[in-house]
Amino acid sequence: MTILIPPAASVGQPAGAIDTPALVLDLDVFERNLARMQQAADRAGVKLRPHAKAHKTPAIALAQIARGAVGICCQKVSEAVPFVRAGVTDIHISNEIAGPAKAALLAQLALRARMSVCVDDARQVAELAAAAARAGSTIGVLVEIDIGQGRCGVADAPAALHLVQAIRAHGQLAFRGLQAYHGGLQHVRGAAERARAVAAAGARTAAVVAALAEAGVACETVTGGGSGSAEFDLAGGVYTELQPGSYVFMDGDYGSNEYGGALCFEYSLFVASTVMSVAAAHGAAPRVVVDAGLKSLAVDSGLPLAWGAQGRSATLDYVAANDEHGIVEPRAGATAAALPALGSQMLLVPGHCDPTLNLYDEIVGIRGQAVASLWPVAARGLSR
Amino acid sequence: MTILIPPAASVGQPAGAIDTPALVLDLDVFERNLARMQQAADRAGVKLRPHAKAHKTPAIALAQIARGAVGICCQKVSEAVPFVRAGVTDIHISNEIAGPAKAALLAQLALRARMSVCVDDARQVAELAAAAARAGSTIGVLVEIDIGQGRCGVADAPAALHLVQAIRAHGQLAFRGLQAYHGGLQHVRGAAERARAVAAAGARTAAVVAALAEAGVACETVTGGGSGSAEFDLAGGVYTELQPGSYVFMDGDYGSNEYGGALCFEYSLFVASTVMSVAAAHGAAPRVVVDAGLKSLAVDSGLPLAWGAQGRSATLDYVAANDEHGIVEPRAGATAAALPALGSQMLLVPGHCDPTLNLYDEIVGIRGQAVASLWPVAARGLSR
Repeated sequence: MTILIPPAASVGQPAGAIDTPALVLDLDVFERNLARMQQAADRAGVKLRPHAKAHKTPAIALAQIARGAVGICCQKVSEAVPFVRAGVTDIHISNEIAGPAKAALLAQLALRARMSVCVDDARQVAELAAAAARAGSTIGVLVEIDIGQGRCGVADAPAALHLVQAIRAHGQLAFRGLQAYHGGLQHVRGAAERARAVAAAGARTAAVVAALAEAGVACETVTGGGSGSAEFDLAGGVYTELQPGSYVFMDGDYGSNEYGGALCFEYSLFVASTVMSVAAAHGAAPRVVVDAGLKSLAVDSGLPLAWGAQGRSATLDYVAANDEHGIVEPRAGATAAALPALGSQMLLVPGHCDPTLNLYDEIVGIRGQAVASLWPVAARGLSR
Repeated sequence: MTILIPPAASVGQPAGAIDTPALVLDLDVFERNLARMQQAADRAGVKLRPHAKAHKTPAIALAQIARGAVGICCQKVSEAVPFVRAGVTDIHISNEIAGPAKAALLAQLALRARMSVCVDDARQVAELAAAAARAGSTIGVLVEIDIGQGRCGVADAPAALHLVQAIRAHGQLAFRGLQAYHGGLQHVRGAAERARAVAAAGARTAAVVAALAEAGVACETVTGGGSGSAEFDLAGGVYTELQPGSYVFMDGDYGSNEYGGALCFEYSLFVASTVMSVAAAHGAAPRVVVDAGLKSLAVDSGLPLAWGAQGRSATLDYVAANDEHGIVEPRAGATAAALPALGSQMLLVPGHCDPTLNLYDEIVGIRGQAVASLWPVAARGLSR
């Protein structure tokens, strides 16, 4: 007799009966977020290529494409595999790759889907060309330029032009344009400051596009941008294509950004936890312990927000995470009476959704107060 | 044609050819760590029940048991399932559990293995008793006492005695003793300070044991302790059984502890990464980008240590982690010449091994410079 772990939930069950910790998606909010970003991109005449590193879930990629997305981004080659299997036919690896194993897998995927990848070094170009030749496929290549993040990407137009020439020397590589991404801009808090920072980065990108044009090189695609800067990226006129990921869920951390305009998104993703100990509430400082800690929530961008029936809890804070425990206390001004009872369910908004998703094999979708879907996070753990 | 992701490594391959990011275990060091802890426990006459939440890997649990461990701890009920499947016959869930689904699974496991769990509330006792009665199994129960961490556990001997009486009222629950654990003690840096803190916590435990004895309740088991405090826990004479987990690997963070005595452990676990971009090295501040970030390394206890052929790198630091990128810079005093080349492999010591293990499905074991084993991390993601 094999012992099986029962599923966290089954379709039709009340949301309150989900076994915890579990990743819970409010499908109504999720669909509003998808529609809002697609409509904004459509209005601006910019293509939307959402980033699948945020959700790692083929069902979500297909929902984005059904609403008008031209394809998806992945951050790693292996991450793209479950999406190709699920029928996604246009994937950009928004990153450089290192080593022949990754280039070989990418070249195989390019037999099945329109694939592209970034480069910032001529040796990467040579490796991609060799792999494409061996597989008999064509790989699209974008030159990544650094627009201020100081991570990957070449520094200037001459370096970009050098790589364009290297790409064009190979018949099985197709030059597709530029990638220009600056992760730091996503989290500049003030709306006006963020607008200025995005404009400065956009000006750097535009200058490289112009210099390449002067040298006779047209950039079919200029791709980049993210959920925090999307409003300004769309208005800037530099990007032909946007890569936002987090707008689907909204991180707890993004809630600290000030949003001036119409392009706001709502929290759709929660970690459902259960109060597993209230022993310390008697005698010591009032608190309860929930069953979701570091192994159920990424804390690199801050602790999760406690969520109540009316939105963010006005009385409770998640104040510390251990491996499998979270400590919840009444906020200053609230009393121990605000604490939830032993065995009760508590929803938490993760501080950073991308690495939180990467901890789960399944997303439990709810509509209203009932479980409506179970979606495999098929690309979980695929970081090679 | 299904596209398959090639394995990260195969047995017999050179370690330098492992596809990255990958979790790499130095088997010689690992075996020395296992032997050292078991010998120390044997010398002290204390049972060793290593914590499997650290490794989530049945092959490692079986190696610990083969060397003399009496069984293992798990932190969640679902986490125990792959270990029972692999033939581990004695598992303590070192935590309270909430909800009938978890109690039912535990009661099922208790038909196959000697299982125990912690309580700190009479309602948990009632739930366990109901589940054991339904399954027709016997569940061992330990009362958790708070010895200063302020997380789970009852505050004092009268509260513990009340729970012992509740447990004894149920024929299918077996009272087994006390759990007394204080996670904060593991990371007190100075050896003398740590010894004093462990002694104070031990005195609280001993007082509860004595008060129960006076009331006619013998504690067959007093379990707790961890890798950072093991030396003092073993010498203290309070614990009958120790639960260390991290000694198998040693976290980067534990390296900041001062170890006075003989019981030191070595780093055995690494994340293998590859340099994927060196573009920024020309012009900007010197640095390279490796392909292991937040999705390949837990950073809650600090960034990983860069590792060289002679141990911790004397010239390089991993200074920032993004989702799938790590930034590596020369340490103050070193120059750009110290930076590794594009495509070269770089080993990193994770700051916190437990949540890092929870990101991978496989451990690549190496002996010398060759791949010697591939072990499934079968309990990865099992946090319910």
